[in-house]
Amino acid sequence: MYAEIIAVGSELLTPDRVDTNSLYLTEQLNTLGVEVRRKSVVGDDRALLAEEVRRAVQRSEIVILSGGLGPTEDDVTRDAVADALGRQLIFSAELLEALTARFARLNRKMADNNKRQTFLLEGAEALPNARGTAPGQWLETDSAVVMLLPGPPHELKAIFADDCLPRLAKRLPPQAIRTRFLRVAGMGESDLDQMISPIYKPYANPMTTILAGAGDIQIHLRARGSNAAEAEALLDEVAPRIEELLGERVYSRDGASLETVVGRMLRARGATVSVAESCTGGLLGERITNVAGSSDYFVGGFLAYTDRLKVNLLGVEAGMLALHTSVSEETAKAMAAGARARTGSTYAIAVTGEAGPESATGAPVGTVIVGMAGPDGDPHAERYTLFGDRNGIRARAAQWALDYFRRRM
Amino acid sequence: MYAEIIAVGSELLTPDRVDTNSLYLTEQLNTLGVEVRRKSVVGDDRALLAEEVRRAVQRSEIVILSGGLGPTEDDVTRDAVADALGRQLIFSAELLEALTARFARLNRKMADNNKRQTFLLEGAEALPNARGTAPGQWLETDSAVVMLLPGPPHELKAIFADDCLPRLAKRLPPQAIRTRFLRVAGMGESDLDQMISPIYKPYANPMTTILAGAGDIQIHLRARGSNAAEAEALLDEVAPRIEELLGERVYSRDGASLETVVGRMLRARGATVSVAESCTGGLLGERITNVAGSSDYFVGGFLAYTDRLKVNLLGVEAGMLALHTSVSEETAKAMAAGARARTGSTYAIAVTGEAGPESATGAPVGTVIVGMAGPDGDPHAERYTLFGDRNGIRARAAQWALDYFRRRM
Repeated sequence: MYAEIIAVGSELLTPDRVDTNSLYLTEQLNTLGVEVRRKSVVGDDRALLAEEVRRAVQRSEIVILSGGLGPTEDDVTRDAVADALGRQLIFSAELLEALTARFARLNRKMADNNKRQTFLLEGAEALPNARGTAPGQWLETDSAVVMLLPGPPHELKAIFADDCLPRLAKRLPPQAIRTRFLRVAGMGESDLDQMISPIYKPYANPMTTILAGAGDIQIHLRARGSNAAEAEALLDEVAPRIEELLGERVYSRDGASLETVVGRMLRARGATVSVAESCTGGLLGERITNVAGSSDYFVGGFLAYTDRLKVNLLGVEAGMLALHTSVSEETAKAMAAGARARTGSTYAIAVTGEAGPESATGAPVGTVIVGMAGPDGDPHAERYTLFGDRNGIRARAAQWALDYFRRRM
Repeated sequence: MYAEIIAVGSELLTPDRVDTNSLYLTEQLNTLGVEVRRKSVVGDDRALLAEEVRRAVQRSEIVILSGGLGPTEDDVTRDAVADALGRQLIFSAELLEALTARFARLNRKMADNNKRQTFLLEGAEALPNARGTAPGQWLETDSAVVMLLPGPPHELKAIFADDCLPRLAKRLPPQAIRTRFLRVAGMGESDLDQMISPIYKPYANPMTTILAGAGDIQIHLRARGSNAAEAEALLDEVAPRIEELLGERVYSRDGASLETVVGRMLRARGATVSVAESCTGGLLGERITNVAGSSDYFVGGFLAYTDRLKVNLLGVEAGMLALHTSVSEETAKAMAAGARARTGSTYAIAVTGEAGPESATGAPVGTVIVGMAGPDGDPHAERYTLFGDRNGIRARAAQWALDYFRRRM
């Protein structure tokens, strides 16, 4: 069974807006085993939209329209679908009553043109919209189900989840979808794909998707079976082999971010951490503190951007800096040790490197050193060569630093 | 004249991917005075795509396809367009030679199926692709121009800019587009829109678009005239009135980011800055240092997340902290003064506040205090009430801090 999604609205044909409702709808349809075969965006043009709907219902069993249900003349979805299907729009006293009550409740005067929102396609069911004035509509024709949904995402999602999904599920053969979700750090996307594609490529079910950004990789596996056990069994055939191959590079199986995982580890030990940042300029601290409750384990730290501050704030020895430069294992270790001593934290993480566009120390742009100090043993450090532009390198540097800390803690 | 854009690829029909090429293409087409009337996404389905193209060329004068030009069986764009227009695909010895040379240059063996990429639609011109193996194609039919472009954005953009725009410009009536671009800080989007909409609403030309995120607002004005002077005159009717009304809230007229503007001001004075961050946890430093060359004026600073570190690292007085709490003007001023004294910077910016989800000090979540210390006069501070979730408040706090610093410096 196939679906088509039509987004309506001239604003979605400008350079600044993209239709995202279809991503949500696709995700939900996929869980029912329905594939989206076509998506389109049409402006507020009744004739063009009517043509679009006419073709869609000929081709596909499910047609979902979003947007164009407002009260103004620009809102053409109701009329266009009526034209396409040769159906009348019928006034609903019930909808008018609900709309009038809504305006009364909000102490607002209902404009005359809101009455446009009280017309239903002949044969359609109204789908109540608790969050806005435009009710959705559900219409079954001989060949297709047609849904009219409002454009604002929170209205669309609520109506689709509450009223459309259950109706669709009843019309479709029972099936179960189960997913696994792995998050991976410390390697690039193409290296990862090369490594694991021999495992997942032979399988269309589960379907494997890899999403990556700045050194953070998400692997989604989605299996479809006639029941939950069957779907789980399909996942068990593939997911554990991927996990085993990736080993400790997998940092989370529940969707938690790397900074959340690091926070959980610190909390579990009753430990605290501080940072000493050079090339990341605050990004590492920002990552750690974007987790609610991070004040339980993050004490603070230093942005030692210049050599002088590395010496003055962190106690890095000037002679050592002159000898090894700021982009060295020695400096990263001294920065970590200094942050730990000066903040009294259990652990400290240091990052120093060349984010570009030019190198100040002679080390190639992309060279990043992560240092760590803790209660056991001497400070230690590792050198990485990272890719990207300035912000790409900085983002990867923070990611690699968190991951180094996770693996060594 | 109207355009349609068709994105090809089954991966664009998953919940994780969105077609962004069409945004770039729309922007470019708009500069030529061409509106996009319809966009669609079709999977790797030759028959469905052929139907799509057949309708598009009947309706619109410009049809652009992106994607589906790769070497595999899944890449159906060439075949589908040939089907739709009733044209043959013709082998091009020239394209084969260029492709062979490309593989030789990269020291890679050309696979047999790459030969699929050496076929041109009857009557089409090849558009060379310096960044990939798939050449674009430009085809003029009786009623429409059809462009086939590769899907990877950097390939598509280069080919469109180099080969399609000039060809399109020749076919269209001469017109000039001129734009103005204002960036605004220190206010919310709806306040701004309420303030300036009486000015821009009456004008369809120039067209005004407002984009906003986390307290950073961009106002785009785009005017269209038959020549540059006419377009400029249209802008001069609207833009100065908006600028005057917004006054010092406008921080940039050339697209520069707030941190870039602040950096320019510091550089112009030969001054340096340091930071003392609490609730932003590094975000302020990260913003300042994401500008290349920021090491000329940013020395570093402190992440004083806990009260203890505010005392130990920044010299904030413990008694004052106990009296006023960490979320107070007094603390923000003391943090700024401490950072300035300890780093030796010309200026220092401090941020402290409650980002939530819970309040540690009793101050309502969203309370943020920005402090500043400099060479002239006493440290000073300002209190803000910011909206959003934890990350929204943090992002706005960094933005408001930079803007406070800009206005007071």
